[in-house]
Amino acid sequence: MHLQSLLDDIASKSSALAAKGKVADYIPGLAQVDPNRFGMAVATVEGELLGTGDWLVPFSIQSISKVFTLVLALALDGDKLWSRVGREPSGDPFNSLVQLEHERGIPRNPFINAGALVVTDRLLSLEEDAFGTLLSFLRHESGQPDLDTDQEVARSEAEHGHRNAALAHFMASFGNLENSVDRVLDHYFRQCAIAMSCADLAEAGLFLARHGLRRDGSRLLSPSQAKRVNAVMLTCGTYDTAGDFAFRVGLPGKSGVGGGILAIIPGRCSLCVWGPALDPSGTSLAGVDALDRFTTLTGWSVF
Amino acid sequence: MHLQSLLDDIASKSSALAAKGKVADYIPGLAQVDPNRFGMAVATVEGELLGTGDWLVPFSIQSISKVFTLVLALALDGDKLWSRVGREPSGDPFNSLVQLEHERGIPRNPFINAGALVVTDRLLSLEEDAFGTLLSFLRHESGQPDLDTDQEVARSEAEHGHRNAALAHFMASFGNLENSVDRVLDHYFRQCAIAMSCADLAEAGLFLARHGLRRDGSRLLSPSQAKRVNAVMLTCGTYDTAGDFAFRVGLPGKSGVGGGILAIIPGRCSLCVWGPALDPSGTSLAGVDALDRFTTLTGWSVF
Amino acid sequence: MHLQSLLDDIASKSSALAAKGKVADYIPGLAQVDPNRFGMAVATVEGELLGTGDWLVPFSIQSISKVFTLVLALALDGDKLWSRVGREPSGDPFNSLVQLEHERGIPRNPFINAGALVVTDRLLSLEEDAFGTLLSFLRHESGQPDLDTDQEVARSEAEHGHRNAALAHFMASFGNLENSVDRVLDHYFRQCAIAMSCADLAEAGLFLARHGLRRDGSRLLSPSQAKRVNAVMLTCGTYDTAGDFAFRVGLPGKSGVGGGILAIIPGRCSLCVWGPALDPSGTSLAGVDALDRFTTLTGWSVF
Amino acid sequence: MHLQSLLDDIASKSSALAAKGKVADYIPGLAQVDPNRFGMAVATVEGELLGTGDWLVPFSIQSISKVFTLVLALALDGDKLWSRVGREPSGDPFNSLVQLEHERGIPRNPFINAGALVVTDRLLSLEEDAFGTLLSFLRHESGQPDLDTDQEVARSEAEHGHRNAALAHFMASFGNLENSVDRVLDHYFRQCAIAMSCADLAEAGLFLARHGLRRDGSRLLSPSQAKRVNAVMLTCGTYDTAGDFAFRVGLPGKSGVGGGILAIIPGRCSLCVWGPALDPSGTSLAGVDALDRFTTLTGWSVF
Repeated sequence: MHLQSLLDDIASKSSALAAKGKVADYIPGLAQVDPNRFGMAVATVEGELLGTGDWLVPFSIQSISKVFTLVLALALDGDKLWSRVGREPSGDPFNSLVQLEHERGIPRNPFINAGALVVTDRLLSLEEDAFGTLLSFLRHESGQPDLDTDQEVARSEAEHGHRNAALAHFMASFGNLENSVDRVLDHYFRQCAIAMSCADLAEAGLFLARHGLRRDGSRLLSPSQAKRVNAVMLTCGTYDTAGDFAFRVGLPGKSGVGGGILAIIPGRCSLCVWGPALDPSGTSLAGVDALDRFTTLTGWSVF
Repeated sequence: MHLQSLLDDIASKSSALAAKGKVADYIPGLAQVDPNRFGMAVATVEGELLGTGDWLVPFSIQSISKVFTLVLALALDGDKLWSRVGREPSGDPFNSLVQLEHERGIPRNPFINAGALVVTDRLLSLEEDAFGTLLSFLRHESGQPDLDTDQEVARSEAEHGHRNAALAHFMASFGNLENSVDRVLDHYFRQCAIAMSCADLAEAGLFLARHGLRRDGSRLLSPSQAKRVNAVMLTCGTYDTAGDFAFRVGLPGKSGVGGGILAIIPGRCSLCVWGPALDPSGTSLAGVDALDRFTTLTGWSVF
Repeated sequence: MHLQSLLDDIASKSSALAAKGKVADYIPGLAQVDPNRFGMAVATVEGELLGTGDWLVPFSIQSISKVFTLVLALALDGDKLWSRVGREPSGDPFNSLVQLEHERGIPRNPFINAGALVVTDRLLSLEEDAFGTLLSFLRHESGQPDLDTDQEVARSEAEHGHRNAALAHFMASFGNLENSVDRVLDHYFRQCAIAMSCADLAEAGLFLARHGLRRDGSRLLSPSQAKRVNAVMLTCGTYDTAGDFAFRVGLPGKSGVGGGILAIIPGRCSLCVWGPALDPSGTSLAGVDALDRFTTLTGWSVF
Repeated sequence: MHLQSLLDDIASKSSALAAKGKVADYIPGLAQVDPNRFGMAVATVEGELLGTGDWLVPFSIQSISKVFTLVLALALDGDKLWSRVGREPSGDPFNSLVQLEHERGIPRNPFINAGALVVTDRLLSLEEDAFGTLLSFLRHESGQPDLDTDQEVARSEAEHGHRNAALAHFMASFGNLENSVDRVLDHYFRQCAIAMSCADLAEAGLFLARHGLRRDGSRLLSPSQAKRVNAVMLTCGTYDTAGDFAFRVGLPGKSGVGGGILAIIPGRCSLCVWGPALDPSGTSLAGVDALDRFTTLTGWSVF
């Protein structure tokens, strides 16, 4: 089957899963999204870009942003980051404080909220204009010069951000923040509120399928670093359902409560699916189903 | 470089790691093993078998046995097993009871002790002679008709088995054991005490690199099942250091406190390393180092 | 009001609480008890003994037995016991393993099951016939030479004792048991299955109101030891609702899932109430209500 | 022995304990206090006031302030408070977030920091000038019209207040704060920084020994409310060492990291000890020793 008809076929089946989930409702900007939206895009290492459904409609990337701040911090600072954040699955929900208390302010991995706050904090120390660096990277890789944060969503995030503020203050109390809590949170809420389409995200994540090479052929990460980021995505990318995601999909992936999932098939392609209705752990139901079908139908998997 | 000289090279470097670790000492049968032993074997899907160092010396396979009971239970019973054991990384040590209490007797995954006890329990319900089935499978795949349990080690395990007895009774209190605690423990201690060499284990695990096909070409698992077992090995195979193992080695792997690690490169080969000196989480120090070198030097990785 | 009419009045009101609770149902011997039973007895330091309702009907004393094994161990062995068991409220249910894992096999206090198993274990080491010692103490203090264990209940406890077996094996794995798990459990199940009436228990506990003096005037505990046992009863006697019990009743007390509660007013009297319908934490609903009324009406309280 | 010589005798012995502890050092205002300071005061229900050592020297009352905000909130609002904060011992350190996550933002009791923040929050809702109300209460009861907050200490608390900010934001995320996090923290840091002497505190706490009656004979709490506050002090007043405090001292007590402890003997007297060197849980070493000696020598105890 052609890749295009395969994607169309998946769309027709997976989009039905929306009925079983619930759109994130903690801020208006997410609660108002139509749960029946569905999009999927594939960007191949050969340069092909295909999609189906709402694959060109921008949505709130939320925690998928954590992948990009992580790779930028690694690219700038190498392995030093790992003294301040682990790379173990947490076994806990994405916003848990329990593990943080037991392990004295060192988050388990860079994809739970606490870990992402540490990564953002590091990026703020490394780059004068950290947010500009992030935005310009995403614009360049996706080829979308207008890509930006949804200010309304960012403001809402800040208003409903008590849990993240608790995480940041908690880490600060252990000395694991270099910048002020307010500065870190401001950046974090803005990075989560960036709006991108499936096509944009598939393009922007392609360097992870290309062993570290950016769109223009320049090297962002060494092959070893790219491999390691993929490993962390596989073990930690979907929080306390990472094991189930690996079991069903078998790919490195990172979800966001906006309903997007970015997944990587090293050496082949990057994929992005969008379906705003979530399972209880905050991962897109239609998205996991679509990726499950994709790997089953193509036989492409890392295992 | 030839695979053989590559293995020899790795052996000369990784074996030095023994000095930084500690041999498991909770039973005499393990405590007496020379920490400086080192062996490594590779079995390729093309049928090649190579090794270096003590690759033909049998050692106590311990928790590596959990892979084989799991696949036998899945082969006999399909997905039903997953209602009694999860497939999420636990984020806790291999013998923790904490998670079990919070999640009402359902172990997080089949590779922590509690989960392996459930798998063994299921196998005992499915097969009249469960231990015979396991032994005959291992003998056939490794081509070693004399392969057996070290009775002395099994007896020691039972004598020092209070923690596992606690786990079994605890699950029984939640109704998650079908057989008597004594029967399950007896099988469990014997399966952990099986003695095999790196060569034996690499051969016995090869079906996971061959997408489910056994040595004689018969099918043990469907490709999808084999993929899923590999996924669970990657996310859960080394307990609370699974994330770090994925980060450094990037392969599905299963460790045992006897110092062995079985690792799989799907479509290519299975590997077994042995180095009895362990890190604090109970994983072979030389073993992880050797696998790290192997994937770096060959560029073979799932990511 | 006379004490007798006060007790009768309380009985008429508190016994109605039975409708809101649930009889312990994990073993037949407890499940078959009529939830509407209600009895209450008061034994004063002046030697008076009064009661109301079913105050002469024997019931299963269950965890109230923990008070008596504790004082016998303290009387024989002094403060040495406290190296193996703490005296802090646990904040967890009576049969939790979580705290035990975090604190390496040292139970928080002697009234949670794990702590009571340690106390029983110690008593078994101190006394050749530990159970005989316990029984003879209870018979003497209550003046009931025929008082004994209900063998049927003891057998049922053993059959449904996986959780306690898990606790005992778990502590054994940390080296915090001196006798075999089987021996400790056997004693523990028998001590919990002792049948006594409210009158018997009020008499048997009177030494705690008499600052350590037994019925015959001999000294069991020093005044300081008696004060300390009362303190531990107040902070730990009703598990994770000890704070609420202190708040409402304001007395040292110890509950059992048979529906009994023993409470002490130092210098004045000991009280025992029985009402088999329990709240979710395993404490008698009518019992707490009756003690609450008693302290309110008499103004007798430690605070 | 006269009470005065008894106090002098205790002072000469207990003050030596200072050598074994450590002054709180997280803010300069506390770190600079001389660890060898020692004071003790007794205020009897008959109106006597005695003291020894540094009993007239003001120190930072810290968490002892939690008793006063609690009783003011109860006096104004009755039992409604208990829907937002429990009254169970936490079994965790005073600033733990773990329990708060498991129990969805409801603190275990009003004496751990989280619970005290909820009480402060409630007081801010009940009283336009909550801090003025607190200060005027303390001034009146102690007879010290100049008693006030140490502004320097309050400012330091705010600068080092990340852990408390984390607790406040965390509870806000569960909807368990009525006022802004900043407003609650500001009040909390100021109440903790109030400076009072042993004499002042013993006088200010006397209403708890007088079953709710203030210095001027007016009623602050009903006898039942006073009894309940004493019960909560006994079970929760010294955090995760409350059981040990009850065991050794046997009195309702509340400690602060400034080194003070307020203790109550209902119907008799209130006591305050001050010794800045703390045990690891944050309780004055000399203070506990002095109270232990006092209850042993006088035989005054609640048990």
